[in-house]
Amino acid sequence: MIIALDVMGGDKGPREMIQGALSALDKVSAEIMLIGDRRTIDGILKEYGAGNPRIKCTYTSQVIENEDKPVQAIKSKRDSSMVVGFDLLKKKEIDAFISAGNTGALLAGGLLRLGRIRGIDRPSLATVYPMTGKMGILTDAGANAEVKPRNYLEFAMMSSLYAQRVLGIRDPKVGLVNIGVEKNKGTPLLVETYELLEASDVNFIGNIEGRDIPLGVADIALADGFTGNVILKVTEGVAKSITDHLKTMFMKNPATRLAALLVRGGLGDFKKTMDYTEYGGAPLLGLKGAVVKAHGSSNQKAIMNALVYAQKYLDSGVIEAIEAYVKKRSEAADEA
Amino acid sequence: MIIALDVMGGDKGPREMIQGALSALDKVSAEIMLIGDRRTIDGILKEYGAGNPRIKCTYTSQVIENEDKPVQAIKSKRDSSMVVGFDLLKKKEIDAFISAGNTGALLAGGLLRLGRIRGIDRPSLATVYPMTGKMGILTDAGANAEVKPRNYLEFAMMSSLYAQRVLGIRDPKVGLVNIGVEKNKGTPLLVETYELLEASDVNFIGNIEGRDIPLGVADIALADGFTGNVILKVTEGVAKSITDHLKTMFMKNPATRLAALLVRGGLGDFKKTMDYTEYGGAPLLGLKGAVVKAHGSSNQKAIMNALVYAQKYLDSGVIEAIEAYVKKRSEAADEA
Repeated sequence: MIIALDVMGGDKGPREMIQGALSALDKVSAEIMLIGDRRTIDGILKEYGAGNPRIKCTYTSQVIENEDKPVQAIKSKRDSSMVVGFDLLKKKEIDAFISAGNTGALLAGGLLRLGRIRGIDRPSLATVYPMTGKMGILTDAGANAEVKPRNYLEFAMMSSLYAQRVLGIRDPKVGLVNIGVEKNKGTPLLVETYELLEASDVNFIGNIEGRDIPLGVADIALADGFTGNVILKVTEGVAKSITDHLKTMFMKNPATRLAALLVRGGLGDFKKTMDYTEYGGAPLLGLKGAVVKAHGSSNQKAIMNALVYAQKYLDSGVIEAIEAYVKKRSEAADEA
Repeated sequence: MIIALDVMGGDKGPREMIQGALSALDKVSAEIMLIGDRRTIDGILKEYGAGNPRIKCTYTSQVIENEDKPVQAIKSKRDSSMVVGFDLLKKKEIDAFISAGNTGALLAGGLLRLGRIRGIDRPSLATVYPMTGKMGILTDAGANAEVKPRNYLEFAMMSSLYAQRVLGIRDPKVGLVNIGVEKNKGTPLLVETYELLEASDVNFIGNIEGRDIPLGVADIALADGFTGNVILKVTEGVAKSITDHLKTMFMKNPATRLAALLVRGGLGDFKKTMDYTEYGGAPLLGLKGAVVKAHGSSNQKAIMNALVYAQKYLDSGVIEAIEAYVKKRSEAADEA
């Protein structure tokens, strides 16, 4: 098994990516392929000592930037780390591809170079989201700014299989993010989506409000990619704002520093819960291969965990389960 | 000056509303009018002793419920506390109207019974939002699930005047909530809105991401009412989830309880920052009169603060400033 990493994506630069890959060697059994600029990769690898036989490299000459227009970048930058990653995945020369780069380009590349699972209309980014007392899923976390009712249904189905197999939640509860819990709330599109979900075989618990997401009323918070991305980032911002406040509070004087010492266990748990670098990457569910988006500002630890999650994702057989589900659904439709 | 309160709105019931009104008597100079069911109001007032001459009552026989369809409810329940409130405001028998009831109905009532400021297309809910080290504004916080570019511009202009006059921010920075900071990010509608804001005279700083909102990158976070409502409620949920975690952490054993004692000042500040009941209500900017939405789950303290904010809002002359701005804009357009 080979998991490939786009060394050129991410805000923190190639060094952080490569350090993450090296620290993942102890945590995954897969081989790790670094994709990116030869001089950069070789230079950094050299600094960290002799080559590890489980580290492979594929060299590329182009980079897709955050400012690039997604579709155009995928079409014109054929020797970019991202496009090459998709091509290797398509040819099955690698088993999974991780990138912390431009989300739009990753989606475009997934659609144009790799392709969707037959029967799936749009792929969805499914991210692990910390909820009171458990881990849940937020989807779509930013792949599709605008979605149709049937897309919501597909996102719900795919993330249910992911939550079952990767998070071990037996019958994940799906909540539709809305501005009120009543059935008739929100835009006409959401009202239609509600009806579609209600009639489906996902474990739909109805509308949920923003407040219900972190409190874990559902296991899966279902939203369009615009709303999902805003939810994820607001959560990060609020957590950061509160963490900063607590830091100032505990560093104020000797007495408060003593207080920090007395609750250090609980503070450690809190820090860990709020630390997105613990959660690794988010798969683009619905693509033909395992494509994992890491946070744009991923540090070494986040990349290490993205590699760990990518292996879990492969081992869990989610992609095959989605394929089987869609096949069964289309056979049932043919019979009807 | 008379500020009226819809006693029948809100999840906590009339007692909480009336207690809030009574505790506001020391904080505002205005008279307070209670609008609602006669037996309920008289019964509760009687419990709290002899009448205060600054408390007035207007009795109504109907109630608009959370489940009611907004426009239909406003049209059919003519003797509801909400419709009567709007009618009194329109006749200038009261100066401001506060309700913690159905947001959709409050918007519908504002449009149908009171009316918009001439030249304003849609009113917007502008709520005070805690940002690191300061207070800012989030708008639209839930009045309009779908909006057009010109609406965003109006929301930005109106909330800038509100931030200047009520929060004392001299030249409030407006950020457009989006899923990336680059100019071309988001839906076509947001790209168009960006251009409109860039060409306007509001202090537009460009797109902001969810994370930037609580961190206070802008003073005003500008969003459609769907996204704004989700942002507000996710923020509440994350704050509640973290607060619950901290409570458990500090209550664990004698040592952690000592820690809580050592940082009680900082914890108090934190609790206050995160407590929406401190921020009073959110005005529906763009209506002809002062209409203030209180949080659905407002307790006594939240209602008291909503009354305090309503008086500030009236005293600050925001409505007149919006009228003057729109008039000047239309005169400038006539000359051009």
